[in-house]
Amino acid sequence: MPFRTTLPFVCAPSSPSAGEWISALQDAMPDERVVLLSELDAAARAMCDVAIVANPLPDDLRQLPNLKWVHSVWAGVERMMADLRDSDLKIVRLVDPQLAETMAEAVLAWVLYLHRDMPRYARQQAARQWLAHDYVRAEGKTVSLLGLGAMGAAAARRLRAAGFKVCGWSRTRKLLPDVACYAGDEELHDMLGRTDILVCLLPLTPETRGIVGAKAFSALPEGASLVNFARGPIVDDQALRAALDNGRLLHAVLDVFEHEPLPEDAWQWVHPRVTVLPHVSAPTDYRTASAIVASNIARYRAEGVLPETVDRQLGY
Amino acid sequence: MPFRTTLPFVCAPSSPSAGEWISALQDAMPDERVVLLSELDAAARAMCDVAIVANPLPDDLRQLPNLKWVHSVWAGVERMMADLRDSDLKIVRLVDPQLAETMAEAVLAWVLYLHRDMPRYARQQAARQWLAHDYVRAEGKTVSLLGLGAMGAAAARRLRAAGFKVCGWSRTRKLLPDVACYAGDEELHDMLGRTDILVCLLPLTPETRGIVGAKAFSALPEGASLVNFARGPIVDDQALRAALDNGRLLHAVLDVFEHEPLPEDAWQWVHPRVTVLPHVSAPTDYRTASAIVASNIARYRAEGVLPETVDRQLGY
Repeated sequence: MPFRTTLPFVCAPSSPSAGEWISALQDAMPDERVVLLSELDAAARAMCDVAIVANPLPDDLRQLPNLKWVHSVWAGVERMMADLRDSDLKIVRLVDPQLAETMAEAVLAWVLYLHRDMPRYARQQAARQWLAHDYVRAEGKTVSLLGLGAMGAAAARRLRAAGFKVCGWSRTRKLLPDVACYAGDEELHDMLGRTDILVCLLPLTPETRGIVGAKAFSALPEGASLVNFARGPIVDDQALRAALDNGRLLHAVLDVFEHEPLPEDAWQWVHPRVTVLPHVSAPTDYRTASAIVASNIARYRAEGVLPETVDRQLGY
Repeated sequence: MPFRTTLPFVCAPSSPSAGEWISALQDAMPDERVVLLSELDAAARAMCDVAIVANPLPDDLRQLPNLKWVHSVWAGVERMMADLRDSDLKIVRLVDPQLAETMAEAVLAWVLYLHRDMPRYARQQAARQWLAHDYVRAEGKTVSLLGLGAMGAAAARRLRAAGFKVCGWSRTRKLLPDVACYAGDEELHDMLGRTDILVCLLPLTPETRGIVGAKAFSALPEGASLVNFARGPIVDDQALRAALDNGRLLHAVLDVFEHEPLPEDAWQWVHPRVTVLPHVSAPTDYRTASAIVASNIARYRAEGVLPETVDRQLGY
C-alpha cells in the first residue's frame, strides 16, 4: 500500500535515538511515510506541512518551505523556542500522561532517597561506620514542588499517598487536593521557608532561569535538600555550590545541567553532597509518545485541527 | 498521686534506648510506675506479674518470681524465644501498625532505589561517567515479598500503588488483593523464578534460618536483586556472596546481619554490589509503641485478659 502522506523526522545531527523514534512513529502511523529529512528530495519537502522534531537545527526546518507546524517528541522545547524566536512556526510539545507518571515515580524515588538518608548511609558504608540516625516520619516532612503542570500534579499525588505534606508553586494559582498551593513571586519565599525537600519541575523560560538562586537558598530552612529534574539553568550553580558548602543545603540530586553530558571537570561529580544523574528522571517511552503524536497528526489530517501549541509569551 | 502498680522494664545491659523507652512508657501509663528492674527491691519484684522487656537477660527475668507474662517492645522476639525455651513464660510481641507502615515505606524506598538503578548511577558518578541505561516501567517488574504478616501486607499495598507486579510467600496461604500469593516449600521456587526484586520480611525461626540460600539464589532469574529487612541469619551469607560474585544477583540491600553492629572486617562493607544499612528500615516510634503497650497492660489490669501471645511452635 502506498503511503498517503510523508512525515519528515527532523532531529539534531547524529541523534542517538533517531532510529528508535522513526521505528516507533512508523509503527504508530501506518498511513504516513516517516523518514529522515535527508531522505526527501526538494519536491517531497515542498509537500510537507507538518514535521516531527527532536531538537531540530533551524536550517533544517527552513528546507521545508510549506511547513505550518511541528510536533516535538520532547516536553521541553526551550532550545527550539530560542532558535525560532523570529519565526511564527507553530510548535506542539509532547504532553504524555505516561511521561508524567514516570517523572512522578522519579520524584517519589529520590524524595524517599533523601527522606531515608540514603546519601548519608552510603558515606557511612564507605567509612565502615555503623550508626543509625533519628527517623522522622513522612508526615513530619514537607516536600515542595516548583511547577504544578501535569508532572507536578502527578508527583503531588504520589507524595501525598506516601504521607508527606506537599506544597506546590506555580506562576498562576492552581488548586490541587491536599496540596498547599502558592503562586507568583511574592508567595515563593513563603513556601520555601517551610520546605524540607524542594523539587524542581519547572519549564525553562526567561522567568524561571536562575529562579533557584542565592535568594531562594537563603529562604530555605537550614538542612533542606534539593532535587532538580527540570532543566539545569533553572538552578544557579554557583549559589547552589555555596549553599552546599555553607551547610544551608544538606544535599542536591541533580539530573539536569547547563551543559550535558556534564563535563568531566565539573565540580558536581565529586561534591560529597551532590548526587549526579545522567538525565534519567523521566526517560521517554517511544511507544506511548508515538501513539500521542499519531493521534494528533491523524486529527490534523482528518479535520485540519492542531493540538494546543506552545505559547510564545509563556515559553511552554 | 501514688502509683497503683509497678511495671519493671527489663532490657539488655547498657541498652542505649532504655531511657527513651521508660520515659515514653511512663507518659503512656500515668497509673503505672515504670522503672528499671535494678531499682526494685525483692519485695517489689515479688509483686510484679507483668514486665516490659527489650532483649532481657534470662537471669534478670528469674528475679521476678511471680511473673505471668512479658510484653516485648520489639516485633522480633527470636533471641528471647531461644533464651527462654525451657520456660513457659508467655511472651507478647509488639504489633504496631505504625511500625508496619514505616517498614512498608522502607520497602518502597529501597525497591525504588533498585528499580531506578541508583547503585549503578552512584558507581558511574564516582567514575565521572555520563551514561543513561534503559528504563523498564514498574508495571514490567515483579517484586516478591517473603513474609505476608502485617509488614508484608502493608508493603504489598504500597508496591501495588507504585505500579509493580507483586508476589508474596508465606508459610500458610494468605489472600491479598492484587498479590499473587504462594505458600509452603513447594511453591517458593515457583515464585522466585519470576522475581526481579526479592524482599525479605520473615520472622527468624528454625524454618526460616538460611531459607534464602544457594537453592533460592539459583531459582532467581539472572540479574535479580535482594532486600533483607528481616533478620541476618535468614540469608546464607556465603551463598549470597557467591551469587553476587557470579552475577546471578545484581545487588543486595542489607539492613540486618548475623552480628550487629556489622564487624569492621565484614566483606559486605566493601562489596560493590552491596548496600549496607545499620538496621534502620523500621525504627521504632517510642510514642506509638508505648501507646500499644499501655493499652494491652490496661486491658490486662482491668479484665485479666492477655493480648495474643507468641506461639512457641511457630516462633512468632
